[in-house]
Amino acid sequence: MRVGVLTGGGDCPGLNAVIRAVVRKGVQEYGYDFVGFRDGWRGPLENDTIPLDIRAVRGILPRGGTILGSSRTNPLKSEDGIRRVKDTLAKQEIEALIAIGGEDTLGVAARLSGEYGIRCVGVPKTIDNDLSATDYTFGFDTAVNIATEAIDRLHTTAESHMRVLVVEVMGRHAGWIALHSGLAGGANVILIPEQRFDVDQICAWVESRFKIRYAPIVVVAEGAMPKGGDAVLKDDSLDSFGHVRLSGIGEWLAKEIERRTGKDARTTVLGHVQRGGTPSAFDRWLATRFGLHAIDAVRDQHFGTMVALRGTNIVRVPLADATARLKTVDPSEYEEAKVFFG
Amino acid sequence: MRVGVLTGGGDCPGLNAVIRAVVRKGVQEYGYDFVGFRDGWRGPLENDTIPLDIRAVRGILPRGGTILGSSRTNPLKSEDGIRRVKDTLAKQEIEALIAIGGEDTLGVAARLSGEYGIRCVGVPKTIDNDLSATDYTFGFDTAVNIATEAIDRLHTTAESHMRVLVVEVMGRHAGWIALHSGLAGGANVILIPEQRFDVDQICAWVESRFKIRYAPIVVVAEGAMPKGGDAVLKDDSLDSFGHVRLSGIGEWLAKEIERRTGKDARTTVLGHVQRGGTPSAFDRWLATRFGLHAIDAVRDQHFGTMVALRGTNIVRVPLADATARLKTVDPSEYEEAKVFFG
Amino acid sequence: MRVGVLTGGGDCPGLNAVIRAVVRKGVQEYGYDFVGFRDGWRGPLENDTIPLDIRAVRGILPRGGTILGSSRTNPLKSEDGIRRVKDTLAKQEIEALIAIGGEDTLGVAARLSGEYGIRCVGVPKTIDNDLSATDYTFGFDTAVNIATEAIDRLHTTAESHMRVLVVEVMGRHAGWIALHSGLAGGANVILIPEQRFDVDQICAWVESRFKIRYAPIVVVAEGAMPKGGDAVLKDDSLDSFGHVRLSGIGEWLAKEIERRTGKDARTTVLGHVQRGGTPSAFDRWLATRFGLHAIDAVRDQHFGTMVALRGTNIVRVPLADATARLKTVDPSEYEEAKVFFG
Amino acid sequence: MRVGVLTGGGDCPGLNAVIRAVVRKGVQEYGYDFVGFRDGWRGPLENDTIPLDIRAVRGILPRGGTILGSSRTNPLKSEDGIRRVKDTLAKQEIEALIAIGGEDTLGVAARLSGEYGIRCVGVPKTIDNDLSATDYTFGFDTAVNIATEAIDRLHTTAESHMRVLVVEVMGRHAGWIALHSGLAGGANVILIPEQRFDVDQICAWVESRFKIRYAPIVVVAEGAMPKGGDAVLKDDSLDSFGHVRLSGIGEWLAKEIERRTGKDARTTVLGHVQRGGTPSAFDRWLATRFGLHAIDAVRDQHFGTMVALRGTNIVRVPLADATARLKTVDPSEYEEAKVFFG
Repeated sequence: MRVGVLTGGGDCPGLNAVIRAVVRKGVQEYGYDFVGFRDGWRGPLENDTIPLDIRAVRGILPRGGTILGSSRTNPLKSEDGIRRVKDTLAKQEIEALIAIGGEDTLGVAARLSGEYGIRCVGVPKTIDNDLSATDYTFGFDTAVNIATEAIDRLHTTAESHMRVLVVEVMGRHAGWIALHSGLAGGANVILIPEQRFDVDQICAWVESRFKIRYAPIVVVAEGAMPKGGDAVLKDDSLDSFGHVRLSGIGEWLAKEIERRTGKDARTTVLGHVQRGGTPSAFDRWLATRFGLHAIDAVRDQHFGTMVALRGTNIVRVPLADATARLKTVDPSEYEEAKVFFG
Repeated sequence: MRVGVLTGGGDCPGLNAVIRAVVRKGVQEYGYDFVGFRDGWRGPLENDTIPLDIRAVRGILPRGGTILGSSRTNPLKSEDGIRRVKDTLAKQEIEALIAIGGEDTLGVAARLSGEYGIRCVGVPKTIDNDLSATDYTFGFDTAVNIATEAIDRLHTTAESHMRVLVVEVMGRHAGWIALHSGLAGGANVILIPEQRFDVDQICAWVESRFKIRYAPIVVVAEGAMPKGGDAVLKDDSLDSFGHVRLSGIGEWLAKEIERRTGKDARTTVLGHVQRGGTPSAFDRWLATRFGLHAIDAVRDQHFGTMVALRGTNIVRVPLADATARLKTVDPSEYEEAKVFFG
Repeated sequence: MRVGVLTGGGDCPGLNAVIRAVVRKGVQEYGYDFVGFRDGWRGPLENDTIPLDIRAVRGILPRGGTILGSSRTNPLKSEDGIRRVKDTLAKQEIEALIAIGGEDTLGVAARLSGEYGIRCVGVPKTIDNDLSATDYTFGFDTAVNIATEAIDRLHTTAESHMRVLVVEVMGRHAGWIALHSGLAGGANVILIPEQRFDVDQICAWVESRFKIRYAPIVVVAEGAMPKGGDAVLKDDSLDSFGHVRLSGIGEWLAKEIERRTGKDARTTVLGHVQRGGTPSAFDRWLATRFGLHAIDAVRDQHFGTMVALRGTNIVRVPLADATARLKTVDPSEYEEAKVFFG
Repeated sequence: MRVGVLTGGGDCPGLNAVIRAVVRKGVQEYGYDFVGFRDGWRGPLENDTIPLDIRAVRGILPRGGTILGSSRTNPLKSEDGIRRVKDTLAKQEIEALIAIGGEDTLGVAARLSGEYGIRCVGVPKTIDNDLSATDYTFGFDTAVNIATEAIDRLHTTAESHMRVLVVEVMGRHAGWIALHSGLAGGANVILIPEQRFDVDQICAWVESRFKIRYAPIVVVAEGAMPKGGDAVLKDDSLDSFGHVRLSGIGEWLAKEIERRTGKDARTTVLGHVQRGGTPSAFDRWLATRFGLHAIDAVRDQHFGTMVALRGTNIVRVPLADATARLKTVDPSEYEEAKVFFG
């Protein structure tokens, strides 16, 4: 059996760990051959490949990024895309394809698999943890650790200067990183895209914090929005990977807090630092297990599925389920966190 | 309502996060008063308390250890222990007790609750992650991160010197830390207490590794044992907290590997470093949620229960379930890891 | 002897370590009493003090920030400032003052000492490492470590997306953080305030990097400026601590690179994360030694001096020397780094 | 010009950074060719080489270990060693040799250079920081950071259990790691090889610490010895790299403290974890600068010299000076630290 592997979408710690596990088990236990496609779906579209064997995956477990490269190319939106992908797979004699990616990458896999008979297995990947059908995605734990360490550091500066610090973290549509790092970092306010926020309420929390001689840390997801406000983020502020540009909600909020409370307020935008570099132990473990189970799904000819985490088990779910809806923060879980606000 | 809180057993990152969450929610939302008992069950036994209010829990979220102190005192084994605990609770007008601890501490809580009518809620705590009824315990993720970082560092030394490095990690009865950190760290052999190991097999893996000009890392849980071997660990090598003494299975194994293969082999015993210091983001999040749900269980008068993690939800389970049996590594999960051995 | 202690200027890891060392040695070896002044020179100006004894400094060694608070209040610019400071010192029976701070804070100490007979000893503090008369200041090593870790993480994202990443680090007038973290992080271009940069040259380096299938990391100090360009940073973009606002040179540069090369370019502004949190081991060691030597200077009645690092020794230098001129990056040291550009 | 490069002695973070800087500058600025010798002096002795060009040094800056491998082979102790080294250099047309190593490796370089006309430039390397003629060696800062982080973690466990924790760190002949990490970590006792210790005094410090309800951390260098005691460390407890075996002074001391004070005492031996893995920013900077200056010394035909750090400058010193005597901890610097004991 000859198996293709590709990684699509934004960078995410753990991609290499998936690739390594797929190849190690595929070669050693099942005797498969592998072909790496370069830069996500651009690889099969343009027949751009790199060798992928045991040697190629040596030493990559602790490294961030992806040895296969990534892109947001969508063959469904390319002229004659489906046929070109099929041609490449035929030329390369690929019998199965493992696609590692987020909503977009897996959405393509779901359609290629469901409508065009291309035999795909998916591995979910998103820093934002907003894919339904899996408890967690790898990369998320690393991002939360990085954001939490940053919040830890900012506390001392906030106290020393009696200043409000606004920390903007990733999360365009879901507030998981904000919620987890905010709770873990002891933030005084956490704002998520799922619930519009009230600037007056935030200012009240900020002021109550100063009254006990502490300085507030406000953690805000990049996709959070004020109540009744127009879109603070303009569409043209997104880059080609759908990442938000620097000057976003955090900057806006700091200015508002400063204007209304008269307190000094500053913003830190963590940005790309959250999505690169060595994965946390949890993410390496999860990514490795995802890889091992993805190649098992190939062996079982269980195509059109995606591996997913449920509790401590890896299960298989229909690819379509993964991308059917966004997994957003449950209102009750957000409510729970509010005891620490203010 | 007046609520007592105690922490028992070995140190574990996240204890303070539980205490903080219990007190913050208990005071702010339910108007409860709190009494801290010092050093686990020794506190109620000897009526040794410390004040526990909002001020006392400020700033403790990121700190390892426990502001309440800990011990392995067991009132069930103390003369007249039950009566003395009851007397203290009466004197202190305690209506409910939150016990944060592992098998032993919760075992006491289960019996006090079941047989003596003392109203207890439990919070599970073990570095080793070997409590049944919960997917994870806090402290485990921190320990795995620390062990993984150590393994990362040891790789370069192993390669530079072409030497076998044996890393002994915690885990007397369950191999969770070994399995997770070994997988995450790219170990070449992982040995767990659940399965006796074959030294000849290990030596074969070690030698196959050298053949491709890499040097092996062997991760061994402190409780792992060789096949057919007598107890390598003597009983008198345990300290009063049940921790194993330094010279253990890792040292023994390195010598055996050296003797049989003729390769240099060294041991690193991570020891207490795994159980102290600031908790990982995951552990802070889990410990915080455990605390919030424990005080909810008190409010609901849902005594005799323990909070537990199931998937991404916090649930309540009977205290007795938690301590009924050890949660050991599933053979199939260990089998899965073997693709990376050798 | 009764000694006052104050910390002024921006937050800096190691301030607490200095305070602890001063108090521990002052109390234990010399039997001195201490008074902490709150928020830099605002404390003596407004007679705002906090108790400062052995108990107050317990456990603060690893903590960022300052237990005394900080501000940029300048008594020389306050009406009747000198007299008010003198009054406070008389009222509090302070015989010597230890001022821990940067150019501004020590500048005040130098004048109070030289012109007004107030007995001061200075301890140099600046994240930016730009104080002359000392090889290093504490806080700098921590900032460089944080920036280097961020650059490490950004490398993988740059490669995965074949994108330019611009990292803006601290350094308004001196490029030490940029130079050290850029060298340590393997940056492909390092830009410092001491030398105006040529955007065309940067674009050439950027493009040569892409030709070998790597993606460039550009490290830029916040105070760096393009050749012949107008001031990119407006004066009103500075906050009350003299810190630059978010939207600065990094953002400007990324847009220029994108415009000229057609490559995707993104900016990460590390900001306040560089100046908070636990100090590195080097900074704790340096800050501790500075503290021990500062109290020795008090005992020796060696006022008007500042402690400083020379090689591995702590020496005393005239306070005036420390603030006479900025210590900027030596052109030859910057030249040396250029072998890694492109 | 064709230049050979070798790395000898124990693993040390920063070796790869030196190699990279040497090759980058040598190739790009001077047009030199390079030959890597494998495993220290074993390489020239046995004519065992690996290619060393720009491509070979890509991406190695942040990695611990050495891509050239290491050993403690000494050609002066090998039969006909000098001739065999000379033969290899002739065969490989090597005109200059850069030797990166500690006392032993540089000692060989000094003699080959001084007595046998082999053109050598040395780069000092020792985790222990005990080479004279340089303020610091790379690897030391990383080791101190790792040890300090471990001590930070151990504090919370010591307090939670009211237990003495003994931390054994590297340092057979010099106590630099113990002194710096002990100061930075807030240890209560620091023991170094330079001064025999008095167990009774240690027990007194330990007990005074418990009196104020804190638990002591004792940092002990592996080469420290009790007063009047016989050698606690047997000669046969050293491995072939001169590293001490696990069961050493730390274990012995914990037992003594336990026996004399009746307090629980445990040992953590940090071991190899201190010498592997990614270098700190300081070590990357220092190693990089050492490499740049070493290749400059080659270009200047300034053989028989070693690069060294003096303050913030890199200088050249005679190779013989570096190995003439051990740089041990100055008694006054150790005395200074004692204010924190007990």
